[in-house]
Amino acid sequence: MLVFPISLVLKYIQELADYEKMSDGPKIDVDRLREDGFGKEKFFRCFVADAGNKLVGYSLYFFSYSTWEGISVFLEDLYVNPEYRNLGLGVGLWKKVAEVAVAKKCNRLDWVCLCWNKTSIAFYKSKGAVNITDKDGWNIYRLTGDNLKQFAA
Amino acid sequence: MLVFPISLVLKYIQELADYEKMSDGPKIDVDRLREDGFGKEKFFRCFVADAGNKLVGYSLYFFSYSTWEGISVFLEDLYVNPEYRNLGLGVGLWKKVAEVAVAKKCNRLDWVCLCWNKTSIAFYKSKGAVNITDKDGWNIYRLTGDNLKQFAA
Repeated sequence: MLVFPISLVLKYIQELADYEKMSDGPKIDVDRLREDGFGKEKFFRCFVADAGNKLVGYSLYFFSYSTWEGISVFLEDLYVNPEYRNLGLGVGLWKKVAEVAVAKKCNRLDWVCLCWNKTSIAFYKSKGAVNITDKDGWNIYRLTGDNLKQFAA
Repeated sequence: MLVFPISLVLKYIQELADYEKMSDGPKIDVDRLREDGFGKEKFFRCFVADAGNKLVGYSLYFFSYSTWEGISVFLEDLYVNPEYRNLGLGVGLWKKVAEVAVAKKCNRLDWVCLCWNKTSIAFYKSKGAVNITDKDGWNIYRLTGDNLKQFAA
């Protein structure tokens, strides 16, 4: 039986947060991740990259929705362990998600990136991606925790 | 039989785009909207506000996913026809989406807003919402159309 390596994905989720200088971001555990991605209702989908039988990276996405263009794909995470960079694995993981978008007839693949991450941004631009925060002025707003509960009450 | 007023929602999607000064944004039709929201797989959910038997606004959301905090809610659209503003309908529509988030044990409700929309931004801030583009530097990137197809190929 092939078992999806959820605990390793969780380890990489933390490594990605560390890289993003937001180490205290992840507040999720293996059971929740398993239930959310592999339970009855699937809230995300995931690809993994392997190198010699070892899982060395992942990309994680979900279907978003645009009232302008319909079903879209949102790439939540993409990560390759530093020891396995520059082998094309990151591009491969990203391409798999782009393939899903095209197969599903989506016109949009969206993701967010930290403004200081110049290496990634240069790569995105080389592929024709557009920063719609810069271009159109879209800013992301978030209501969390007690503020969210209070508003809903 | 109660029929969901999809064509009116589509009309309001266009009115919202007009308000956002992006009139040529919407490229969706009633059939697609019906299939995507009310078909076998539901890519979005929608609330409508009525005033005297007339549909006068809508909020539209979908479940997103955070690898830090799990299932989240993304509010894609919220709109109330100008003739019916300042009656609390917009807040009501927003609150319904927040209730869904809390009921689903989500810690996050996200949305995007255009940086020039000062009235909305003031309201968001009054509820404790945080602009995470400003605060943390998250920018939105998008790959579309031919660039997306080319990348996936």
